[in-house]
Amino acid sequence: MNKIHNFCAGPSILPEEVFQQASEAVKDLNNSGLSLLEISHRSKAFDEIMDEAISLSLELLNLKKESYTPLFLQGGASLQFLMTAYNFLKNEAAFLNTGTWSKKAIKEAKLFGKVDVLGSSENENFNHIPEYEILKTYDYFHCTSNNTIFGTQINFFPESETPIFCDMSSDIFSRVLDFSKFDLIYAGAQKNLGPAGATLVIIKNDLLDLINENVPSMLNYGIYADKKSMFNTPPVFSIYVSMLNMRWLKNMGGIQAIEQNNMKKAAILYSEIDINPLFKGHAHEKDRSMMNATFNLLENSLKDKFESMLSDANITALSGHRSVGGYRASMYNAMSLDSVKVLVDVMSELESKI
Amino acid sequence: MNKIHNFCAGPSILPEEVFQQASEAVKDLNNSGLSLLEISHRSKAFDEIMDEAISLSLELLNLKKESYTPLFLQGGASLQFLMTAYNFLKNEAAFLNTGTWSKKAIKEAKLFGKVDVLGSSENENFNHIPEYEILKTYDYFHCTSNNTIFGTQINFFPESETPIFCDMSSDIFSRVLDFSKFDLIYAGAQKNLGPAGATLVIIKNDLLDLINENVPSMLNYGIYADKKSMFNTPPVFSIYVSMLNMRWLKNMGGIQAIEQNNMKKAAILYSEIDINPLFKGHAHEKDRSMMNATFNLLENSLKDKFESMLSDANITALSGHRSVGGYRASMYNAMSLDSVKVLVDVMSELESKI
Repeated sequence: MNKIHNFCAGPSILPEEVFQQASEAVKDLNNSGLSLLEISHRSKAFDEIMDEAISLSLELLNLKKESYTPLFLQGGASLQFLMTAYNFLKNEAAFLNTGTWSKKAIKEAKLFGKVDVLGSSENENFNHIPEYEILKTYDYFHCTSNNTIFGTQINFFPESETPIFCDMSSDIFSRVLDFSKFDLIYAGAQKNLGPAGATLVIIKNDLLDLINENVPSMLNYGIYADKKSMFNTPPVFSIYVSMLNMRWLKNMGGIQAIEQNNMKKAAILYSEIDINPLFKGHAHEKDRSMMNATFNLLENSLKDKFESMLSDANITALSGHRSVGGYRASMYNAMSLDSVKVLVDVMSELESKI
Repeated sequence: MNKIHNFCAGPSILPEEVFQQASEAVKDLNNSGLSLLEISHRSKAFDEIMDEAISLSLELLNLKKESYTPLFLQGGASLQFLMTAYNFLKNEAAFLNTGTWSKKAIKEAKLFGKVDVLGSSENENFNHIPEYEILKTYDYFHCTSNNTIFGTQINFFPESETPIFCDMSSDIFSRVLDFSKFDLIYAGAQKNLGPAGATLVIIKNDLLDLINENVPSMLNYGIYADKKSMFNTPPVFSIYVSMLNMRWLKNMGGIQAIEQNNMKKAAILYSEIDINPLFKGHAHEKDRSMMNATFNLLENSLKDKFESMLSDANITALSGHRSVGGYRASMYNAMSLDSVKVLVDVMSELESKI
């Protein structure tokens, strides 16, 4: 079968070697005679997997274990929307509203305290990152580094006395940042980390002393930190595959190396969007996401032709989210430059044919 | 490699054909050219998987979709301890305290309202199911049908005006019950349902009208019911493998057939525990679990010899939980009668050797 170019926004492509290794482990984990799925999470084998996953996440982000604790949880970023507030909202938290996921985070936080929205681009269908200032101290400031649906990405993060919380679900491990500027980072696995079913939280150790009273055990970051993410049975498979994927990234040269790839992929696609008169990008150029490019076909009459050409080229999952329409090309770490070139070729061929 | 007899209490053995099918799907789902791990949860392929998982769970339990809604969530039974209370505890709930998991459920519920413990066997290290009566109407009555750690199982469930909630994590799908007596059933996947990372909740539709105000979205049963468990990205892999496992069980003849197997396995092991003078069971005979048999070696001097014989016979994960000590043989649905016979043979050989 010909290779399929999978531009799905998530769950999404992972490296072929990770699929192969994960498949093998489901049959037999490291020649143990046991499937990965039937081993105890209290076994030595899983303990080593968890230790490696924890170490790799810190190493890739260039963070020290003396300052940060990585947790592998369940429930996706959506559970973090309420966990961050349940644990840390005492009086008032500040938010930047840059899209669907920010809005959901704001909605959940309002159940636990006051919310101050410092900036929003909702009036322009979230096609840019709004300007804002943090003028006082809040319990925390929350932002979404990459907006999967709208194809925007934050390039500058604030300096502030207020702790910075960031939902990095769709761009973690994709670009170099000073991650030590953040107090709490979280990411649903199913983009650049691993398969759906795991959530990575990286929490500054100082924050663990500030957890609110009476937070239920399964929502309490402190309990997970004490128990090495094993207060109860963790999502063994998703953590294992995330570990394999982080190992792959480390072997690739880490975030520095993958960022170069990601820049090339984004550059050739955005260049085509800009020069091809049939297409128009959704996001302002300065705020364009390196992970998710959103664009529209200007003439609706070409839709069927374009989509039939995409299908002939084995391109799948390019439809935009219903909030934006058009197309969305998600180019996560495991997406090859060649796959992006196949898409660019189809776009360019469409222009030449009319 | 010789077959390993895996008596792990969870995550635990699943049928060999399920491991093979899951392994194949990680490489290529149904010859689609895509891995199960890279498909969108909004795709037709996953929608069909979810529909089949929902139908199978109802069919196996002999419940009607007009009366019950199955949900596939994350967080394990431990998250259900607080979700049940967050959604339904208004004034006072009743609990039966039969072990570690019941105690944890009680602890979380106390954060949300009054708790009345109707019976407890804690003073005797939970070696039996205590007597109790439900003398008034509560918001709900909560019990744990099978106590994995202590090896006890409830055989009689109450008739009451009070809604009955039951944690069936370690014995769901293992025996015939009138499941329509329950208003809410939940089970972490990693015993008889599938791999760790999914949680099945089966909720009576009438209950959905009684959900408390201001429950956060990710903890709100009503939102999951409205969204077919896809309010956010579900644990795709764990749900798929759970579906495969339920399909296997249906093909085996369903719960009626597997119950016969489970009774045979338990009968030969408990019979050996009772007649072999070297061993003593932990649980009272009337309350013995068909899933987890807990027993001790009476003479500690034989420990090394016994464990070396177990190892020679390729028996793994037979250690008891630290709260009970000794041994625990977990005999979930996928465990063969032959594997239990291997264990019984070792126990009997130990007796003949001394």
